[in-house]
Amino acid sequence: MAGDLVLLVAVSLLSACQQLHFAWLVGKARMKHKIMPPAITGPPEFERIFRAQQNCVEFYPVFLVTFWISGWFFNQEIAALLGLAYMFARHKYFHGYAESVKGRLTGFYLNLVALISLMALGAAGIANSFLDEYLDFNLAKKLHKLL
Amino acid sequence: MAGDLVLLVAVSLLSACQQLHFAWLVGKARMKHKIMPPAITGPPEFERIFRAQQNCVEFYPVFLVTFWISGWFFNQEIAALLGLAYMFARHKYFHGYAESVKGRLTGFYLNLVALISLMALGAAGIANSFLDEYLDFNLAKKLHKLL
Amino acid sequence: MAGDLVLLVAVSLLSACQQLHFAWLVGKARMKHKIMPPAITGPPEFERIFRAQQNCVEFYPVFLVTFWISGWFFNQEIAALLGLAYMFARHKYFHGYAESVKGRLTGFYLNLVALISLMALGAAGIANSFLDEYLDFNLAKKLHKLL
Repeated sequence: MAGDLVLLVAVSLLSACQQLHFAWLVGKARMKHKIMPPAITGPPEFERIFRAQQNCVEFYPVFLVTFWISGWFFNQEIAALLGLAYMFARHKYFHGYAESVKGRLTGFYLNLVALISLMALGAAGIANSFLDEYLDFNLAKKLHKLL
Repeated sequence: MAGDLVLLVAVSLLSACQQLHFAWLVGKARMKHKIMPPAITGPPEFERIFRAQQNCVEFYPVFLVTFWISGWFFNQEIAALLGLAYMFARHKYFHGYAESVKGRLTGFYLNLVALISLMALGAAGIANSFLDEYLDFNLAKKLHKLL
Repeated sequence: MAGDLVLLVAVSLLSACQQLHFAWLVGKARMKHKIMPPAITGPPEFERIFRAQQNCVEFYPVFLVTFWISGWFFNQEIAALLGLAYMFARHKYFHGYAESVKGRLTGFYLNLVALISLMALGAAGIANSFLDEYLDFNLAKKLHKLL
């Protein structure tokens, strides 16, 4: 099984590195603006970077769940591409937010598109798996045979 | 293996949708109370909704870990039911908290009950797996044979 | 497969208990300093404990991802030991932070060492899996044969 999921695993590790990178950028912003922990308030530049990271943290488990489900139950390659798209959107979101409040929007909407696509593919994969498991009807295989 | 875990996967995807829904409700509260990011302070109504979501975010990975372990090592159907109970408790918690500080308590205690049940079942499943793996003694199978 | 991963599962469940324990310590600090939710500000003692827990929450999914990847694709036993080291570092971090801002540093650096080791092992395991999957070349097996 490990081999079938290696792309998902690779993207997951990359995304974990990205999360670590965001946390490191918050640390750098703390030094630059001289904001010692545990404070989380300060000049708007710092607060934007801090909130950007917090938002990435909030969504990370939701991303992982939808990413793995769509990759496992729908298609590994498509999920891996959407996962990379999500990481790119998070990159745009973080650096856009660091510059201005409005700057976060492009990345944010891209994020949502990637996340909702992953959810939809995951739901489709689960529906097929339910039919297969409980009604012994595998739609994906039947489509394969027809085409 | 995928088929044996399809209930866990389905509940996981539902819980990811719920997390997204909570984040969306915070966005709606931001608009209503005109609190532009990155601010996270404002009238108590907004702060309660924000903290409710933050608390859901904090516990989400803990829920996922205990949910999957109990479903995988103990029993998929029981874990799925407890997972749905946890989601219902989170729903009560969020909306109760949005109304008043005290309103969060019922949901919160229900959450704890669901989470600790998942932990206990997971621990039982792991203990059985350890006995099986390292002492070649499978308690679950022996109980099955007796009954 | 379940048997091959039982150590990873056991450490994951322990780490989930630790996260719950940290959340409970924040609740205790709230009572002690009489800080009713949804407030998250107060005397420095409370704010340090609160930030300590938040930091543990932020890193928890990153830990889980790197922990599982290194355990699954590299070596279960080594990953389990590093996972326990990470939990110990989090323990030191949390209680050090609760005492003073500087007190968090030892635990924090230990955390980073454990996390980056897990990432490096995970990356090595994935690289080997890629070679095996797409180039039919399994380095780990060849090394095994030589030794």
